Amino acid sequence: MIVEILAIGTELLLGQIVNSNAMHIGDRLADAGLDHFQQTVVGDNEARIAAAITAACRRADAVIITGGLGPTKDDLTREAIARAAGVDMVFDEDQAGRLRERWERSGRIMPESNLQQAEHPDGCSLIANPKGTAPGVRCKIDDTWVFALPGVPAEMLPMLDEKVIPFLRGSDASVVASRLLRTWGDTESAIGERLGDLYDASTNPTIAFLASGGEIKIRITAKAATREEALALIAPIEATVRERIGKRIFGVDDDTVELVVLRMLEDHGWTLGTAESATGGLVAGRITSVPGASRVFRGSIVAYATEVKESLLGVSADVVAEHGVVSEPVAVAMADGAREQLGADVVVAVTGSAGPDPQDRPVGTVVVSVVTPEGSQVRTLSLPGDRERVRTFASTAALQLLRMSLQGIAWGSR
Amino acid sequence: MIVEILAIGTELLLGQIVNSNAMHIGDRLADAGLDHFQQTVVGDNEARIAAAITAACRRADAVIITGGLGPTKDDLTREAIARAAGVDMVFDEDQAGRLRERWERSGRIMPESNLQQAEHPDGCSLIANPKGTAPGVRCKIDDTWVFALPGVPAEMLPMLDEKVIPFLRGSDASVVASRLLRTWGDTESAIGERLGDLYDASTNPTIAFLASGGEIKIRITAKAATREEALALIAPIEATVRERIGKRIFGVDDDTVELVVLRMLEDHGWTLGTAESATGGLVAGRITSVPGASRVFRGSIVAYATEVKESLLGVSADVVAEHGVVSEPVAVAMADGAREQLGADVVVAVTGSAGPDPQDRPVGTVVVSVVTPEGSQVRTLSLPGDRERVRTFASTAALQLLRMSLQGIAWGSR
Repeated sequence: MIVEILAIGTELLLGQIVNSNAMHIGDRLADAGLDHFQQTVVGDNEARIAAAITAACRRADAVIITGGLGPTKDDLTREAIARAAGVDMVFDEDQAGRLRERWERSGRIMPESNLQQAEHPDGCSLIANPKGTAPGVRCKIDDTWVFALPGVPAEMLPMLDEKVIPFLRGSDASVVASRLLRTWGDTESAIGERLGDLYDASTNPTIAFLASGGEIKIRITAKAATREEALALIAPIEATVRERIGKRIFGVDDDTVELVVLRMLEDHGWTLGTAESATGGLVAGRITSVPGASRVFRGSIVAYATEVKESLLGVSADVVAEHGVVSEPVAVAMADGAREQLGADVVVAVTGSAGPDPQDRPVGTVVVSVVTPEGSQVRTLSLPGDRERVRTFASTAALQLLRMSLQGIAWGSR
Repeated sequence: MIVEILAIGTELLLGQIVNSNAMHIGDRLADAGLDHFQQTVVGDNEARIAAAITAACRRADAVIITGGLGPTKDDLTREAIARAAGVDMVFDEDQAGRLRERWERSGRIMPESNLQQAEHPDGCSLIANPKGTAPGVRCKIDDTWVFALPGVPAEMLPMLDEKVIPFLRGSDASVVASRLLRTWGDTESAIGERLGDLYDASTNPTIAFLASGGEIKIRITAKAATREEALALIAPIEATVRERIGKRIFGVDDDTVELVVLRMLEDHGWTLGTAESATGGLVAGRITSVPGASRVFRGSIVAYATEVKESLLGVSADVVAEHGVVSEPVAVAMADGAREQLGADVVVAVTGSAGPDPQDRPVGTVVVSVVTPEGSQVRTLSLPGDRERVRTFASTAALQLLRMSLQGIAWGSR
């Protein structure tokens, strides 16, 4: 069972939005053990959409289309499917009734253009959309199943998970399982070299390397009749990788560093706070993205202005004058001040120069300090890139150094 | 001049990362007035990459490939180009020297696997990579120019902007210009209906609608011999759109709401602070993403734990007991407390229930309060979606309501 993804939308070609749907669908296909070798994007043009559907149907057993089902006149996916399948469009009175009812329930008057969402290619089935007005479409073109889902991710994903994937799984029994080992603190080529022999020897499982957001990830993927058999193929390779990479591996699969840190804090019975300048709340934002963060996280003081560092965090004006705001003594004082103000057991503090103009120190200079009931550490980093990269990498470094402190690893020993 | 984008990487198919490169390249191609109708993604498989190159060369005058140029063994783009072009691979001593030099300068020993980056298809030119070790490649297959760039965005983008786009522009003189009008507070179908006649009548300029991150964007795009002529075609359409949509339009093109808000605050001569609970620092994080935010932004108090709301923001325990933490009186008290603690003229405060478990009020309930030297407003919102969406939409709503307050628009008058 080979599945292709076809995303529709001129906004994708013009670079106004990123194709996150393809990412989510790819992830679900991999989990379901369905082969997936190609993705395509075309714009809001009926002839080009129809041609892309025809081409994908030639290569694949199923095609999942996203986008172009909305109520405006540039939504052309339904018409393009009809063209590729060589059928007419039909108007569905039941669906029109459901649309009118939905708008009435929300107490608003339905713009008539929404009735476009009650038309579909003749002979297809509709897929209910519990989160929005545009139903999905399923039909067969020659021997290929074609699914069309809305482009809004929050509407598309439940329909994918509840209707499309189970339907496709019905016709393919093999399973792909994978383990993602997440590392921090080494370059991609150093990791690749240390594992080169495993890479050469591997066919099932396969190994892949991926650098993103400051992390290097190692993915081990195996295919077998059952998930258990696939995981059994992965286990010995994972053991060898762990032997060679050691403590640089901080998590597996969806273990983000924020999740790992919150788990460790819960195990210690410690609460957490942050004190942020250059990262401007990003570290707190990442920590609070984890459901249940409130069990551990007290809050953050974002002291962006120097006066706020002094008035709220108690950083002395003399220390600022002597060392500058981007300095180890200031980071340590920020951590101490936030610990007291927030009543937290552990605090991670970040100060730095994110650019575009250097502030006190060259752009990319970032100082991280962590204080726990067992001691404190501080380090000055020099991070590459523009403002956005420096801030992202600084928040990752802050969370990783916090993780190492909680594991009792000295920062100098990497 | 028709340009296609081909992204290489099994990590893209497996849904481990999003194809942000295609978005950035699409944006640059649109600005340069180069036609772009299709994007493709294939995995790290030499035969499939070569087939995708051959297919794209049939449809397009130029193909921009990203990814697969790294130092590990799953980097196969160079080999696939050689296969599609029917040429051999050659080893480039000069490039090998540059690689060795680069590693020496950084004081590290080069893993030998990096020498893979000194090989390239015979007859191609190399494109210098100032930010990394993998050079790009340019060659011609039949009548189509093929460019291969690294997958790391920070390396790819300067090479695209400085080498690839100017090269392609040399052979196409027409210009596409566009204006993106950004709105908040109306549904996509309501906007689409209000502008339906403009959409029907439009061929050059064209109009498109796009919903993302809580905003509805209206893009007007025109093609002409010069940028000035294209903008002159856009102007009357933009005037009509503005007449009909009015104050719901808050910005143009790259005017994010955070940028618009900071500009307004500078005009008023006011400083800003935030007090956040459910958004956990996201509002502060978005504000500080703007270069120069320090001219206006004092800082934030992220009071995640209820005790911190009381101790640091002075929210009275009685108010919390009577109204609950997700309530208008608490949001107002948070704003007042942060204003005093941060010494800010204006504060936006957010409290809410982001889920997955309801906290005090149903998931999605979010209260925003804004206080300025001229008065204060508060509103309770009911936002859809899961934790991530509620937090994102809450931070957008907080910034948009802040923008309306700064414009003197009453929140009830939408």
